[in-house]
Amino acid sequence: MQHLYAVIMAGGAGKRFWPLSRRETPKQFLALGQGEGSLLARTAARLEDLVPPDRVYVVTGEHLIDATLRELPGVPRENILAEPLGRNTAPCIGWAAATIQRRDPEAVLAVLPADHEISDPETFCDVLRRAAEAAGAGDLVTVGLTPTRPETGYGYIELAEETAPGVHTARRFVEKPTHARAVQFLASGDFLWNGGIFLFRAHAILEAIAESLPSLSEALVAFDQAAARGEEAAVVKARYAGLPSVSIDHGVMEKAQRVLVVPADFGWSDLGSWVTAWEQAPKDGADNAAPAGSVLLDTSGCYVRTTAGKRVALLGVDDLVVVDTEDALLIMPRARAQEVRRVVEQLVEQGEERLV
Amino acid sequence: MQHLYAVIMAGGAGKRFWPLSRRETPKQFLALGQGEGSLLARTAARLEDLVPPDRVYVVTGEHLIDATLRELPGVPRENILAEPLGRNTAPCIGWAAATIQRRDPEAVLAVLPADHEISDPETFCDVLRRAAEAAGAGDLVTVGLTPTRPETGYGYIELAEETAPGVHTARRFVEKPTHARAVQFLASGDFLWNGGIFLFRAHAILEAIAESLPSLSEALVAFDQAAARGEEAAVVKARYAGLPSVSIDHGVMEKAQRVLVVPADFGWSDLGSWVTAWEQAPKDGADNAAPAGSVLLDTSGCYVRTTAGKRVALLGVDDLVVVDTEDALLIMPRARAQEVRRVVEQLVEQGEERLV
Repeated sequence: MQHLYAVIMAGGAGKRFWPLSRRETPKQFLALGQGEGSLLARTAARLEDLVPPDRVYVVTGEHLIDATLRELPGVPRENILAEPLGRNTAPCIGWAAATIQRRDPEAVLAVLPADHEISDPETFCDVLRRAAEAAGAGDLVTVGLTPTRPETGYGYIELAEETAPGVHTARRFVEKPTHARAVQFLASGDFLWNGGIFLFRAHAILEAIAESLPSLSEALVAFDQAAARGEEAAVVKARYAGLPSVSIDHGVMEKAQRVLVVPADFGWSDLGSWVTAWEQAPKDGADNAAPAGSVLLDTSGCYVRTTAGKRVALLGVDDLVVVDTEDALLIMPRARAQEVRRVVEQLVEQGEERLV
Repeated sequence: MQHLYAVIMAGGAGKRFWPLSRRETPKQFLALGQGEGSLLARTAARLEDLVPPDRVYVVTGEHLIDATLRELPGVPRENILAEPLGRNTAPCIGWAAATIQRRDPEAVLAVLPADHEISDPETFCDVLRRAAEAAGAGDLVTVGLTPTRPETGYGYIELAEETAPGVHTARRFVEKPTHARAVQFLASGDFLWNGGIFLFRAHAILEAIAESLPSLSEALVAFDQAAARGEEAAVVKARYAGLPSVSIDHGVMEKAQRVLVVPADFGWSDLGSWVTAWEQAPKDGADNAAPAGSVLLDTSGCYVRTTAGKRVALLGVDDLVVVDTEDALLIMPRARAQEVRRVVEQLVEQGEERLV
């Protein structure tokens, strides 16, 4: 697949995994989940058989360029697209598509979040090959993940007819459902999770953007013209804040005439919070995930993470998240893990920028 | 009071305040409670107006001699009595009495635990003067602390008739009572806490030991004889493990014909556990005692202690004790604070001597 390019979306503010994640080391730079190395490095490693490093592009924040290059030593500097600020996924993908399109008008993009866990990389590659084939024919393609629980935190994609083996048309995208609907979705077998993995020709997504988000499209044309003059960086810097902050799902895919879905089951997790980290981690008989040597007395359901050499002792506590770093310690019930942003916000209010 | 000597009992294994306290830095070396400096240094400082440093004796463990001298720079090395191992308070006090008696046959001892908090040092000195006067006349004297709650963790002393202003005879010592009895004790006004503060002539306590604990008395005579030959250290080392391990209260005072009590109210606390540390500490409106700058969201009744520069964030937790040091972190409900020894025991089982 000589025209296949990977676009790794590696922005992210790094609040949900505070205090391990920080502005300067957001989630994709952390060794979360079960593998070795950072999520970003593992995302790139999974693509090795599909895409050579010089066809891997990464969209990230300006302050993360050096850290990104350290994680991905094979990826050329010019393949790092540094956003002046985050504007959701539509501008991010649009800019990457425009950039790659200039290099290769036949380019097919595989767009992937940098911070997800995939436990079955072989199946992942098979799915991507099938999806890339469909995308090469001109369709907008999304990967639909087989749901394993009635999750209310994700968007869903409803399947319609199969157009080729393992490839369906999408009937519709559904926003985060209520629990009752999520239970129905799971039972029906026709609804898959939208995990934010998309494949399309650069040309095809730029056309779709032109149709649904003309202001973004106009900016992308201006980026192209600036690139021809060697002034792209300045124009991106000047105009990026003015781009519409919208997701590719909501802003483009949902509005497209036809979207294909490749159903997939490759042990996917978005590692969305410390609770997901706990779910994914190896646990003892009392459902504790803690470093070896931890002293856990009358303690269950806890997730413990700390620095090397630090010993943790929990006595008589249940269902806590405990994350200890050199300069910060977070303790909360697992059930409150979604609220960790409040801690970050309070630290910002206290003027403790060094801690966030 | 030229014959008044202080005997500070500064043994203790340092388990109840783990992970801050360790074998090498037990509780008396920690800056617990509300004052500046270690509990041991503060204990000595409170005595400054009563006893000059060369009449202050400290009984402690062999491995704590240097640390003790660092805390008490005015106290001569020869005033540190280093026990080869702890054998409760009767041998400790007996050995100190024998040692000081050799120096000053008229000596009156004020025996004090090294690790208690006293918030009103002036009243403390007044009480000690009154008790020392009674002790100088030959009586065994104990200080009885006005109870402030129906505590079931302490022994009590029942008051009998007043023999001089502020001095009573003790009717009896009572072991740790049930809650119902403790409530009665508190209501009656006749029962005081036994805080382990005793005053007596060295001669008087040695006589009482001879009567109640003849085997200890015999050893103390052997110590005296060895001291005359310059061989005391070797004999103490050889015989200490064979001494009866018994408290001065239980082994001697309870069995004495007559004991006097000086009732006192000088803001005493034994700082017996992390719960007591929490009780004594300044707290916010939600009953949290935590370092300035801590982020405490929907959190109440927590005690937090950590190293300088470490930021703690608690979200949605109640009534926890959180103690964080360079190499260990303890989390438990306040109600389980008495069980922290179990953590220490497990670390010993794991062979982690460096952590205890």
